[in-house]
Amino acid sequence: MLKQPQTYLDFQDPQARPRHTGIASFFRAPISQQLDGVDIGLIGVPFDGGVTHRSGTRHGPRAVRDQSTLLRRINAATQVTPFATARVRDLGDCWIEQPYELVTALKEIETFYRAVTAAGVVPLSVGGDHSISFPILRAVAASGPVGMVHVDAHCDTGDDYMGSRFHHGAPFRRAVEENLLDPKRVIQIGVRGTTNDPDMWGFSQRSGMRVLPMDEFDDRGWRHAAEEARRVVGNGPAYLSFDIDSLDPSHAPGTGTPEAGGITALQALRLLRDLRGIDFIGGDLVEVSPPFDVGTLTSFNAASILFEILCLLVEAREKRQPLR
Amino acid sequence: MLKQPQTYLDFQDPQARPRHTGIASFFRAPISQQLDGVDIGLIGVPFDGGVTHRSGTRHGPRAVRDQSTLLRRINAATQVTPFATARVRDLGDCWIEQPYELVTALKEIETFYRAVTAAGVVPLSVGGDHSISFPILRAVAASGPVGMVHVDAHCDTGDDYMGSRFHHGAPFRRAVEENLLDPKRVIQIGVRGTTNDPDMWGFSQRSGMRVLPMDEFDDRGWRHAAEEARRVVGNGPAYLSFDIDSLDPSHAPGTGTPEAGGITALQALRLLRDLRGIDFIGGDLVEVSPPFDVGTLTSFNAASILFEILCLLVEAREKRQPLR
Amino acid sequence: MLKQPQTYLDFQDPQARPRHTGIASFFRAPISQQLDGVDIGLIGVPFDGGVTHRSGTRHGPRAVRDQSTLLRRINAATQVTPFATARVRDLGDCWIEQPYELVTALKEIETFYRAVTAAGVVPLSVGGDHSISFPILRAVAASGPVGMVHVDAHCDTGDDYMGSRFHHGAPFRRAVEENLLDPKRVIQIGVRGTTNDPDMWGFSQRSGMRVLPMDEFDDRGWRHAAEEARRVVGNGPAYLSFDIDSLDPSHAPGTGTPEAGGITALQALRLLRDLRGIDFIGGDLVEVSPPFDVGTLTSFNAASILFEILCLLVEAREKRQPLR
Amino acid sequence: MLKQPQTYLDFQDPQARPRHTGIASFFRAPISQQLDGVDIGLIGVPFDGGVTHRSGTRHGPRAVRDQSTLLRRINAATQVTPFATARVRDLGDCWIEQPYELVTALKEIETFYRAVTAAGVVPLSVGGDHSISFPILRAVAASGPVGMVHVDAHCDTGDDYMGSRFHHGAPFRRAVEENLLDPKRVIQIGVRGTTNDPDMWGFSQRSGMRVLPMDEFDDRGWRHAAEEARRVVGNGPAYLSFDIDSLDPSHAPGTGTPEAGGITALQALRLLRDLRGIDFIGGDLVEVSPPFDVGTLTSFNAASILFEILCLLVEAREKRQPLR
Amino acid sequence: MLKQPQTYLDFQDPQARPRHTGIASFFRAPISQQLDGVDIGLIGVPFDGGVTHRSGTRHGPRAVRDQSTLLRRINAATQVTPFATARVRDLGDCWIEQPYELVTALKEIETFYRAVTAAGVVPLSVGGDHSISFPILRAVAASGPVGMVHVDAHCDTGDDYMGSRFHHGAPFRRAVEENLLDPKRVIQIGVRGTTNDPDMWGFSQRSGMRVLPMDEFDDRGWRHAAEEARRVVGNGPAYLSFDIDSLDPSHAPGTGTPEAGGITALQALRLLRDLRGIDFIGGDLVEVSPPFDVGTLTSFNAASILFEILCLLVEAREKRQPLR
Amino acid sequence: MLKQPQTYLDFQDPQARPRHTGIASFFRAPISQQLDGVDIGLIGVPFDGGVTHRSGTRHGPRAVRDQSTLLRRINAATQVTPFATARVRDLGDCWIEQPYELVTALKEIETFYRAVTAAGVVPLSVGGDHSISFPILRAVAASGPVGMVHVDAHCDTGDDYMGSRFHHGAPFRRAVEENLLDPKRVIQIGVRGTTNDPDMWGFSQRSGMRVLPMDEFDDRGWRHAAEEARRVVGNGPAYLSFDIDSLDPSHAPGTGTPEAGGITALQALRLLRDLRGIDFIGGDLVEVSPPFDVGTLTSFNAASILFEILCLLVEAREKRQPLR
Repeated sequence: MLKQPQTYLDFQDPQARPRHTGIASFFRAPISQQLDGVDIGLIGVPFDGGVTHRSGTRHGPRAVRDQSTLLRRINAATQVTPFATARVRDLGDCWIEQPYELVTALKEIETFYRAVTAAGVVPLSVGGDHSISFPILRAVAASGPVGMVHVDAHCDTGDDYMGSRFHHGAPFRRAVEENLLDPKRVIQIGVRGTTNDPDMWGFSQRSGMRVLPMDEFDDRGWRHAAEEARRVVGNGPAYLSFDIDSLDPSHAPGTGTPEAGGITALQALRLLRDLRGIDFIGGDLVEVSPPFDVGTLTSFNAASILFEILCLLVEAREKRQPLR
Repeated sequence: MLKQPQTYLDFQDPQARPRHTGIASFFRAPISQQLDGVDIGLIGVPFDGGVTHRSGTRHGPRAVRDQSTLLRRINAATQVTPFATARVRDLGDCWIEQPYELVTALKEIETFYRAVTAAGVVPLSVGGDHSISFPILRAVAASGPVGMVHVDAHCDTGDDYMGSRFHHGAPFRRAVEENLLDPKRVIQIGVRGTTNDPDMWGFSQRSGMRVLPMDEFDDRGWRHAAEEARRVVGNGPAYLSFDIDSLDPSHAPGTGTPEAGGITALQALRLLRDLRGIDFIGGDLVEVSPPFDVGTLTSFNAASILFEILCLLVEAREKRQPLR
Repeated sequence: MLKQPQTYLDFQDPQARPRHTGIASFFRAPISQQLDGVDIGLIGVPFDGGVTHRSGTRHGPRAVRDQSTLLRRINAATQVTPFATARVRDLGDCWIEQPYELVTALKEIETFYRAVTAAGVVPLSVGGDHSISFPILRAVAASGPVGMVHVDAHCDTGDDYMGSRFHHGAPFRRAVEENLLDPKRVIQIGVRGTTNDPDMWGFSQRSGMRVLPMDEFDDRGWRHAAEEARRVVGNGPAYLSFDIDSLDPSHAPGTGTPEAGGITALQALRLLRDLRGIDFIGGDLVEVSPPFDVGTLTSFNAASILFEILCLLVEAREKRQPLR
Repeated sequence: MLKQPQTYLDFQDPQARPRHTGIASFFRAPISQQLDGVDIGLIGVPFDGGVTHRSGTRHGPRAVRDQSTLLRRINAATQVTPFATARVRDLGDCWIEQPYELVTALKEIETFYRAVTAAGVVPLSVGGDHSISFPILRAVAASGPVGMVHVDAHCDTGDDYMGSRFHHGAPFRRAVEENLLDPKRVIQIGVRGTTNDPDMWGFSQRSGMRVLPMDEFDDRGWRHAAEEARRVVGNGPAYLSFDIDSLDPSHAPGTGTPEAGGITALQALRLLRDLRGIDFIGGDLVEVSPPFDVGTLTSFNAASILFEILCLLVEAREKRQPLR
Repeated sequence: MLKQPQTYLDFQDPQARPRHTGIASFFRAPISQQLDGVDIGLIGVPFDGGVTHRSGTRHGPRAVRDQSTLLRRINAATQVTPFATARVRDLGDCWIEQPYELVTALKEIETFYRAVTAAGVVPLSVGGDHSISFPILRAVAASGPVGMVHVDAHCDTGDDYMGSRFHHGAPFRRAVEENLLDPKRVIQIGVRGTTNDPDMWGFSQRSGMRVLPMDEFDDRGWRHAAEEARRVVGNGPAYLSFDIDSLDPSHAPGTGTPEAGGITALQALRLLRDLRGIDFIGGDLVEVSPPFDVGTLTSFNAASILFEILCLLVEAREKRQPLR
Repeated sequence: MLKQPQTYLDFQDPQARPRHTGIASFFRAPISQQLDGVDIGLIGVPFDGGVTHRSGTRHGPRAVRDQSTLLRRINAATQVTPFATARVRDLGDCWIEQPYELVTALKEIETFYRAVTAAGVVPLSVGGDHSISFPILRAVAASGPVGMVHVDAHCDTGDDYMGSRFHHGAPFRRAVEENLLDPKRVIQIGVRGTTNDPDMWGFSQRSGMRVLPMDEFDDRGWRHAAEEARRVVGNGPAYLSFDIDSLDPSHAPGTGTPEAGGITALQALRLLRDLRGIDFIGGDLVEVSPPFDVGTLTSFNAASILFEILCLLVEAREKRQPLR
């Protein structure tokens, strides 16, 4: 920014400045138009073409960017300092040129992410709907299937729907079919709600995923879920996909497919912090739909969760290869 | 609907169609103008003439209908399939012709429900304020006193208020006095808040009802509450009355008499699911006041709870006499 | 409805009942599953697949239905009594089975409307986005091109966009190309705003449409616009398409493509009332996006405008062939 | 207030203090528990028992009080200084002890106002629904029929409805019948909308009231309306009743019976200012329903209008008998 | 109030009247302009000049007053009857004459509170931002350092910021430095979030305060926190400072510095009730920012918490010296 | 942005891309950290330290940026193409390092703008409160007094207030005193409302400014106002200051000092377009307070007005010295 601090040098760091100031990039991280010198790339994917009911997640990245400016430099709970440790950049949006063609749109996303991962940048994405995780996985898991911690009210391993193989209820079935995910190393946490498909969790279970439904989460707590996640995912590379509808609607009303009776924000934060040590190579936070939000509650909680995911990615990246 | 599916036959079932489509009946169930061939009748009672403070629950039925379209066919937690098991119909509204006369208005409601129960239809009602439970009980308990599971922030067993024997704080005192409820078989769950009447819970306790206050609920959990409910109500016929203000205001801001520090939506859902086996012969969900809602959070949680009550009623009905 | 009036016989007419009561059909008109005996069919088209920016109009029909219950039986300004004059029915929604395929989706709509018009029913539709007008016109103008009064902030005669010939900015170009509209008998009222296309109004003007921009409307008033509309459209059959974004955002914030500085609701109502005499054979009201609404202002104004369009259609229908 | 200015003596006047400070009385006027030494009494009437559809105006007085703190001491348009000219006091609320009995409730209001007028205090009331004007007129017009300027979307001269002679659509019919109003000296401005009663304006017109509908207002402007008002009302004592639903819903969404296409706030302010010289002996502003408001737009516009009415009452009072 | 009950004598007590009636003082307590005969003084401090990011708490007192009218006379959980036990008065606002000068502004507050405490009145304040606690402590702890129970997401023991020694993140560092607080008798409950200062909790810990972070609170519960509070604070005089941002944003979205993952309203209420016995000599509730609230959720929860603090202050006051 | 168009080359221009995509800069203009090669600099000034009542305009720049993404490349009314004609850049925010010191803060702003104008960049600023115009004028009018078109509900030529010479009600008095404005070449349009100062417009009038109050604007229209503006300002250099509270609250509820009865958005747009030809050398749009907005109505109208100001500045700049 042109405006430089004159008196208080701390303000040279954008993240230390008054939080209502400056163009709203993710966490007020530097905006970068290139991939060189970037360790972690924050990317918006303003696409909700995979949704059949309530849409609006195309507006998610901007809303999360805005609220993410409320976060600061240091994770008080874990002492992780993501921006000091890694070169974290806001890479802007992976927008869609041909939104009317779902298959083409997903291909556009895949192409973008292949460039990102080819440059060695760890991607942390903000949707958009959950259909985006599939093309992202095509890039992230290009060299072999990965594990996944998946926090969501839904398994998202459904089959074709309304004439399409690809939609926000199916990304992980497609990913298993394409050998992008190793279902034995996948855990799905927070699943609940009503369904139209008697076999809704069927694919997840038959393929070997660990489904940890909301009732189990509620009975045994976030520590149990984190323990199960670490056990299932193991030491190999893994992806983290966080659907904001895993949260209770009182914590995340602004989403397209709310399900009553979910995870609290506090549980989500603590669950994530307890995943330290897993070798995360990418992550996403999806399904924030600002037009359905009240105040900015959903976007704010989403930004807070995104910060925890960022910390996990930074730590994992540092562990794979020391930075700086 | 005139629009019939041409490609995907699943969509012959209205509840399988995209959820933003179709006129908003409760759960998109068929609208019926007659009682023949109906097992469970969903009924709106848009009346809030029993309220002295914040009103607006007259708009409750439409708001809950709208949000109930987000629910699907199968209860993933219990595998109950209410619409496949029973003939569930939206019978429209029991509206009030003479709202300025509270006694007459309640009589109108009673007359309507006597027709419903006379036809063997199990009523599941959406208020409206809590005063409606009294005339409904006059119909439902016409052949003798029933038990009741009552989830509420208030006992609603108060005495005359502002010149009226009938109001939304008194239905269950009146019901006991008329021998519609067997107080020994009544449990009141979630009671809390401030009061103006030193004897507020007095009638409940003296008449033999089991008052399970919020603190006990919080200390011992929903399983304890459900266990107590099953113990107290026993095997006889019972009514289920759910006041949305039992929920914490963060889960149900849209109500007339909020009390801080209540039940979460998740606790409510699990409590209700754990009441399976009780011989419920009717139920209501009351006090949703859309003008005070934020977003549609209250209506959505109310619809989710209504679905659980529906499942309980269907199972109980099936158990009394096999359907189909 | 099961609940019948006992004391005040006026309430036999649903539209005379207290307005917060009953399932929310358009104007509380009877819901009909068949076309026989219907003069005017009110139809929801919950489809916004033609939108590339802010969506949400798929939720428009329910929101307009809800607010339309505030309207009453008699148009006080014109004394028209639509429900007494014609058999007006809510035909439910023309929902979309294959929303991922825009061309197929529009074909679904066309098929539905061909059945409606074949039965002699005059359709009055509530969108949904403006792309729906094109397949509706395929049915309405099946026997030859029609004129049109088009009130909108945009001409909607754009060309291909983002890889699609069909979208909410192009329906009337496509309609002219298919000879469904006679551009010489088309007037577009209220056009304004910013544009990306230097030739934005070009097709409209070259094809012979009368573009009456907002500035002219503001300078000369609604009477001038109505006069021009009657002059341009003449005596032949005509369609009426009302895009809610023609209104000023202070009157209609809940829309996807707002343009500052538009028509007031009062001007819109008076403009429409002054179109009496035109031979309207169908109409639509589109682009109400409830997720972007504040309160229910947009839906309420939309319902009020819909009522005026209904009156126009009823009068025109009656004039073509006396009813009852 | 205990907190007294120490540096800037201007702040001795509560109305000069920062506007977000202090308990919210009307215009931050002194709160008075007695009638002695009061020229103009501002009174809240939090009663909406006369409403059959959307309620909530019982919350009107508090919301208008809150927004009225934004107003200042001097009317910049007319230079009137109401608080310096007259002893203006907030007399608190005329609340209702027996809300379930409409007739009794109205009697309670009448009794209260008889005490106010007996003490020579000019009452300016904030509703509450329009049914309150009738008992107020019983007090204000105790010594003979008065004229009235009535700004409203509705005539409110309807007959019995839903079993009651008294409701918010009938106060002025009852007032004429009881000889409280001289219908020849009554003008009703802004009337419009739909109706269920073919004779809706009938009583007004037959009794000799001047009905100035919205279309005439729109065609001829506020100066014409003011001129007509002065002509009709003449020199005798008159009451001013302002129903906030006379405003366009874009200016006053928070009301129970909105009608599209109304008066703007600017027109209302200028109309009122042009009524200077009429011998107003009381006034009310009714039908503000905060639960239906967006932001505080309706309450704010209501407070601004209330200020103009206050200025009119102060000037008329001063003219009848010099103050101070 | 002028309006006196005629039929139901209970209504002589303002707090027994219908809750939407009357000018909104705190809990509808009598408004007093003098300190004589007052035991507990409820005071608004509409000042947010100590904030650098999101402001708006200057509107807090009015919003909390409004919602506090929903509370009643008796604490159902503890049976405390604050208004019957002590003379509780709303003393109005301590407003600021020189808001542009932070130091002067805080001095104005101090002067006001010195008068309050000199009169033997126990102050219970509603902010305003947290900077106000410092000048209040200067008055409350005039005769020696006090202990404190501090519930907050932040320690508020930071150092100079943006050129000021005084701001809403530093009051308690300043208070320790001035010997107003005995840090060994201070507990801070609920601390969490991100930080820019690696030493953020440093001053608290080095000075000897007991920091009980959110994770510990979540792991061990409110009973543990209350026990720790009683242990740390001991028998000496203590102040209670409750920052509404200690609550989870789903319970208190309307605050300037939200931190995800906080205390629920129920936990807060029970924690406070379990502090009975501590010798509280004053308290405050701060950081309610109505412009950021959704519905009135934050203000309502704040009012409910304020009621519990009031009960604590009344009991402690009674214990020090019997009242009445 | 990293994401480049592959199929539709039009999308190389960020402003042609789907409007919900990309980081929200003003009008999606390129973000620039340097002044070289910039003709028009869009600058946010997130400062509201000059406000004494309702604040929140510190959040204005981000909210206007967000809504400005809805605007497109071409002004359809005037055919001006600002981004093709001039190098328009978003220069980020002029944030404040020492917000607690109003004088210092304003000095920070001045310093920033002196750098901007020294580089020959024409500044177009978004506030923030109106106090920012004064330090901006110190830079813009460094070489001699300028004229001004000032659209506002208030004259903002007040004197010291609450101990400060500088506040959002005084910038233009200070500017006249410092010879930055030539009062004879200043017009103030839209002034209205209530006041506490009997001499409120006094300084404006005595110094020779042309005050064109709202009533005159309403009587004679925007063309008259534009004509007067051109006459008063003449041919010399001029500044344009647009306070969003000039708009009617129904068009701009999100502001700190609303005044009922203002300018419509349409009138504002047309007024501005009719100012073409004036030699504008800078401009600002101030007082947008997002926390008080409903939906995003105020921000959207503000962005639309900002676009018109941008067009004026581009044309004036081009006229002074041809670009490109």
